[in-house]
Amino acid sequence: MSRSINLAVVPGDGIGQEVVAQGLKVLRSVLPQDVKLETKEYDLGARRWHRTGETLPDAELEALKAHDAILLGAIGDPSVPSGVLERGLLLKLRFAFDHYVNLRPSKLFPSTATPLAGRPDIDFVVVREGTEGPYTGNGGSLRTGTPAEVATEVSVNTAYGVERVVRDAYERAQARPRKKLTLVHKNNVLVYAGHMWKKIFDKVGQEYPEVTTDYLHVDAATIFFVTQPERFDVIVTDNLFGDILTDLAAAVTGGIGLAASGNINPTGEFPSMFEPVHGSAPDIAGQGKADPTATILSVALLLRHLGFETEAARIEETVAADLAERDGAAPRTTDEIGDALAVRV
Amino acid sequence: MSRSINLAVVPGDGIGQEVVAQGLKVLRSVLPQDVKLETKEYDLGARRWHRTGETLPDAELEALKAHDAILLGAIGDPSVPSGVLERGLLLKLRFAFDHYVNLRPSKLFPSTATPLAGRPDIDFVVVREGTEGPYTGNGGSLRTGTPAEVATEVSVNTAYGVERVVRDAYERAQARPRKKLTLVHKNNVLVYAGHMWKKIFDKVGQEYPEVTTDYLHVDAATIFFVTQPERFDVIVTDNLFGDILTDLAAAVTGGIGLAASGNINPTGEFPSMFEPVHGSAPDIAGQGKADPTATILSVALLLRHLGFETEAARIEETVAADLAERDGAAPRTTDEIGDALAVRV
Ligand SMILES: CC(C)[C@H](C(=O)O)[C@@H](O)C(=O)O
Ligand SMILES: CC(C)[C@H](C(=O)O)[C@@H](O)C(=O)O
Repeated sequence: MSRSINLAVVPGDGIGQEVVAQGLKVLRSVLPQDVKLETKEYDLGARRWHRTGETLPDAELEALKAHDAILLGAIGDPSVPSGVLERGLLLKLRFAFDHYVNLRPSKLFPSTATPLAGRPDIDFVVVREGTEGPYTGNGGSLRTGTPAEVATEVSVNTAYGVERVVRDAYERAQARPRKKLTLVHKNNVLVYAGHMWKKIFDKVGQEYPEVTTDYLHVDAATIFFVTQPERFDVIVTDNLFGDILTDLAAAVTGGIGLAASGNINPTGEFPSMFEPVHGSAPDIAGQGKADPTATILSVALLLRHLGFETEAARIEETVAADLAERDGAAPRTTDEIGDALAVRV
Repeated sequence: MSRSINLAVVPGDGIGQEVVAQGLKVLRSVLPQDVKLETKEYDLGARRWHRTGETLPDAELEALKAHDAILLGAIGDPSVPSGVLERGLLLKLRFAFDHYVNLRPSKLFPSTATPLAGRPDIDFVVVREGTEGPYTGNGGSLRTGTPAEVATEVSVNTAYGVERVVRDAYERAQARPRKKLTLVHKNNVLVYAGHMWKKIFDKVGQEYPEVTTDYLHVDAATIFFVTQPERFDVIVTDNLFGDILTDLAAAVTGGIGLAASGNINPTGEFPSMFEPVHGSAPDIAGQGKADPTATILSVALLLRHLGFETEAARIEETVAADLAERDGAAPRTTDEIGDALAVRV
């Protein structure tokens, strides 16, 4: 465990600024005295793009590489054409830094409201592939803007890419008490990619005889997320299905205000990046209304990734305790929630 | 309105057999005396494939064309490799008969249990594109089965295909009291297809000034399905997103046992096909446990499509009345539910 953290901070757009400030506050407060925290902020996102036309220049991509980890707020603004920042900045980071494990835990805290009747026990983690699938930017459009336009999107999947993320998911399942891993895909329609995923899933599974496995089509999986979420322990799935399922998972647990994520490069060759699952929420930006909890829980994932398990657990316990007191209490500002958690931690 | 119906019946696999029998029972019972119903059953599905290796021979495809409509039960069995029957039979029918409007209404009946706390008002319809997108079977795999395998899936989208389904959705929105249409896609990542969908959606919208429009990314849409389903009226979306969202819609309303669908060819060039959204459920097949209601509601969609609006509405009211009595009552067999609805209708 390193006794110093050299952190890159990318607040980004909208509420990203506000929530990242609280994440840093809690991070500073939880770290032991002897751990040196250095942070460097990168001005990337909508304002930068409007000013310079740049999304992520090579020099900054290079500079980011030198950090131990990246804390990101949110990317995206209605003033920028849809896709420009998502592809040119957020996905560029995930792909350039080979964040092939996009880790998204879902837990229903005992005190948190859920839209589900009957309050099921929810505690699962989605291992979303982060560097392939329909997210590669492959595709194009022909006769663009005419009535004869054809637009394609190519989902690219490699045995190399699938095997490494599937293996990571088995490792995580093996380390959890229930040891259950569910593959989600749509192999009755997407037969090329789907069959490859399933074959590799079955093959790697032979090395983990203690892990119980299951397969679900993505459409059926959404049903179980709502009617029987307690059946899940670890889920492994492709980039697009993982995107969809983790928003749904957030909806059935405490809402998108609590959903944390880590874009992890397990080899350590590149810095991993931690961010809330939510977006930049321009409608409430600058009003102190954003819930910084998802970012603070992402800081916990960051600490765990860097070997600070005690501190990560402390943040998670503090959040659980704070959530238990939210019920019926007056709503607090972004800052107040951050302060409360920073003090308590 | 034709005073005769020449119906093709494809019971298919698993519970398909059982539920289609009940659908026909109700259809016979609801039709006025003077309407001549002719039915022809087609033996297609897993048993046929095991026996002859055929999924859908040309001669049968040709014969099916002559019918006014098709009633389908369910396709798929674990004894057949995943994808063989789905692609070779079900999707082949949807594509060959140009079923570009895959219509899936979602309504929470007052008496029906929902996994959602607070019982929101749900009454929306998903217009799922049925002949393009990731369902075209485009793609392939290279170095199959080796550690160097690459598998692709190509989503193919045409202005021709998108415009016609978007227009159909505007027409449906225009005809409903709330007149609201939501486009669901993922145009911040799938920029080629997503931007084309959005452009066409906006362009066609100019012809429907009374229709309020909205756009949601598919991940965000799943959140609203759970937290605020009452915000939706008509939704138009691509083939894969529509597949996922309609299972989720079924989950938040009465469950997959009530979800009906129509694969519609609006031009009338080919017969439209009506089927429950659920699958063949081999685990409960042959036990009289399947709920035939989704099939019976699909028969209502079939009747409406053929111009029998009164009879369609009668089935829907009968189902609503029957559902109101299910609460707390002893569970009934497939046959008993079918009988009850047939008598009452
Ligand atoms: C903003 C968008 C590109 C991103 C994604 O689709 O991955 C987001 O939805 C997420 O889940 O992190
Ligand atoms: C069985 C399968 C091919 C089909 C689909 O994906 O369209 C089903 O899930 C559906 O929704 O009708």
